[in-house]
Amino acid sequence: MKANITETNKKRIVIIGGGFGGLQIARSLSDSNYQVVLIDKNNYHQFQPLFYQVATAGLEPSTISFPFRKIFQNKKNVHIRVAEVYKVDAVNNQVDTSIGIVNYHYLVIAIGADTNFFGNKKITELSYPMKSVSEALTLRNRILENYEKALTETDREKRKTLMNIVVVGGGPTGVEVSGTLAEMKKSILPKDYPELDFKMMQVYLLEGSPKVLNVMSENASKKAQEYLTALGVNVFLNSRVKDYDGENVFLEGGKAIPTNTLVWAAGVTGNRLEGLDPAVIGRAGRIMVDRQNKVKGSSNIFAIGDIALMTEEKFPDGHPQVAQVAIQQAKLLAKNFKSMDEKKELKGFSYKDLGSMATVGRNKAVADFPKWKFAGFFAWLIWMFIHLMSIVGGKNRLFAFINWAWSYITFDQSLRLIMKPKTRKEISPERMSS
Amino acid sequence: MKANITETNKKRIVIIGGGFGGLQIARSLSDSNYQVVLIDKNNYHQFQPLFYQVATAGLEPSTISFPFRKIFQNKKNVHIRVAEVYKVDAVNNQVDTSIGIVNYHYLVIAIGADTNFFGNKKITELSYPMKSVSEALTLRNRILENYEKALTETDREKRKTLMNIVVVGGGPTGVEVSGTLAEMKKSILPKDYPELDFKMMQVYLLEGSPKVLNVMSENASKKAQEYLTALGVNVFLNSRVKDYDGENVFLEGGKAIPTNTLVWAAGVTGNRLEGLDPAVIGRAGRIMVDRQNKVKGSSNIFAIGDIALMTEEKFPDGHPQVAQVAIQQAKLLAKNFKSMDEKKELKGFSYKDLGSMATVGRNKAVADFPKWKFAGFFAWLIWMFIHLMSIVGGKNRLFAFINWAWSYITFDQSLRLIMKPKTRKEISPERMSS
Repeated sequence: MKANITETNKKRIVIIGGGFGGLQIARSLSDSNYQVVLIDKNNYHQFQPLFYQVATAGLEPSTISFPFRKIFQNKKNVHIRVAEVYKVDAVNNQVDTSIGIVNYHYLVIAIGADTNFFGNKKITELSYPMKSVSEALTLRNRILENYEKALTETDREKRKTLMNIVVVGGGPTGVEVSGTLAEMKKSILPKDYPELDFKMMQVYLLEGSPKVLNVMSENASKKAQEYLTALGVNVFLNSRVKDYDGENVFLEGGKAIPTNTLVWAAGVTGNRLEGLDPAVIGRAGRIMVDRQNKVKGSSNIFAIGDIALMTEEKFPDGHPQVAQVAIQQAKLLAKNFKSMDEKKELKGFSYKDLGSMATVGRNKAVADFPKWKFAGFFAWLIWMFIHLMSIVGGKNRLFAFINWAWSYITFDQSLRLIMKPKTRKEISPERMSS
Repeated sequence: MKANITETNKKRIVIIGGGFGGLQIARSLSDSNYQVVLIDKNNYHQFQPLFYQVATAGLEPSTISFPFRKIFQNKKNVHIRVAEVYKVDAVNNQVDTSIGIVNYHYLVIAIGADTNFFGNKKITELSYPMKSVSEALTLRNRILENYEKALTETDREKRKTLMNIVVVGGGPTGVEVSGTLAEMKKSILPKDYPELDFKMMQVYLLEGSPKVLNVMSENASKKAQEYLTALGVNVFLNSRVKDYDGENVFLEGGKAIPTNTLVWAAGVTGNRLEGLDPAVIGRAGRIMVDRQNKVKGSSNIFAIGDIALMTEEKFPDGHPQVAQVAIQQAKLLAKNFKSMDEKKELKGFSYKDLGSMATVGRNKAVADFPKWKFAGFFAWLIWMFIHLMSIVGGKNRLFAFINWAWSYITFDQSLRLIMKPKTRKEISPERMSS
């Protein structure tokens, strides 16, 4: 069955995935001579750098999610489709999706990366990843539900298991979420649960390498660890997780930490897409592309962002999987598409590192800019400003600002709701009465 | 098993349900000589009058939900428990709950009312009720998902079924939700879905009696109907639903309306609580109480709000099931508890009707105040003001205000997200990789 999308005399570019890369290229091409079809599983773009704030009740999901249709209102060139993509058929230039077959002249794969559980079945089933707003919300519900349970638990050891939180992975996500949890332990949770003894709650951050934030500068790593330790986070370096049974995290070397909440931010692997030549899949599941983001061996299939594996002199193992790479690649590829249309020469990509940052709780952040590396309160202010400005939509930006200012002044996050929309089944049939 | 709640030398009042009544009495008793235990299924209070705005993407769930623990921070007398209550054991003065047995000296039943499906199994299973924030969110997801589906549907009749919405019940909820949907049809949906023909979308409001808002004044009913019709809502009076098969609503008299979205706001019935003497359950599942809200035949069990059936001279069939009755009963009962403690005389309840209102889309509302009945723009302004002031929490109030002002100026609601937290099962195990 063919998907219902009007065919025009324009060439069609199909973009799979509306993350930083996919959204950027769709925007850049919205007034071009191409018809753009953007396919995503969700009807909204997600602002990944702030997932940890959703998980820790600092921001609402809607503040960092923005409906695609709203972004592309008045852009008649751009067609949004909420669908699952099953398979690419490169021979016939089409993708098979949950809403039918979609033809393309050019295909842009921007499907990003997802959590890597490194093949451990129990960790896959029992831990809490944080690679989507939904997952962040699930983690928030989990943490709050555990504290409710702890209240009614009379066994001291079980109570400790409910209250402890173990975060695995010392990258920005792990650092940010463990720092915020430590802040919550200090200023919010004891007020909400005066019946519990918060000396029993421990936040752990486990990192396999010898330092946290190991893609950042030496100074940033050191400072971040210093801040985390001061906040009361138990930072364990050179610590690898061997297994998890839902109640204990077992480390290599024999140590076990009791917890019902294992947050898994230990690594990512490229999302899979059937139908591609296995020979183009490189390390960490990424798709090998040339300097114009063209997939190896193809003439009209491109990959950008986290899923793309492009090597440059400075990045022999590929680019870091961050928003800036995706956005820069998207902008250049959009330009190249326009050049193709105008029969002009195409350009090759070269990553311009604008710097990286991570925040650690209230008032503290670390920043590595190309010409300036610093840490502390000023870095935190800059972190706030940059993230605020990157949020899509004026109202969302305003709401995030108010939420942050409010939390800052009141030492409180007020979004501690355990909330789930019901499925039709859960709207219980036994409620029938007459 | 006994629930883990510290026993003090104070007498314990257990409140079941944290709606308007339960929340009010817990607040009024928070500094009293009683120990208060508030039990609710959720960890937050829900502001019911604005559910329809969540369903129509005008407000976020968090704006009209407020965590109990936040409300009662610093109130050491009040213990919150998130639990399901299974049964009352009046002989032993205890309730059986999902967290164990809870003893009481006094019990306050404030469990409210839920949707009445009048015994129709198919309607129970297939329609969308709106009696909780979760249900409102489910309806919002449903409506948005249907429009996404309509885009890919090539059959014209099926597309119509996806786009039509039928609301059953001409009370405030039905009037407010159908009015807002008609506004969305005019100003928002065509912008989001330029590929769809919105002449095909019809909003229906079905009411069994000869007028909408039939508990309000003649003038309010007439005006509300006028406003709805002007907005393009198909108002069918004296129309009763016989059956629904998920695609067609069948009316008594033979007419059928095609729709995949049947919103059921046709009536309520008291929530059930096991263990009560069946003789005390009156019409519509309500619990019969005396003028001090004491359950018939009991000395220490009380019921307040929607679930309570109290007759007064002016209300021979019981009070209307509205927030004001619950709040006023809660305040008086709290006073009476304090009087009991001080061995003073108890007072009897008498409902003071402060008036009622309903809003119909942008700019219009109807208001019946004791000495003044009016309709139009001014009524709408007052509606906004009263509802804004009733929202719990300063930040929520501010957010609701900004959302409303923003929507008003931009003719837009930006919360059109189809979002669900994932269950652990949905965080798919097949994502495992190494």
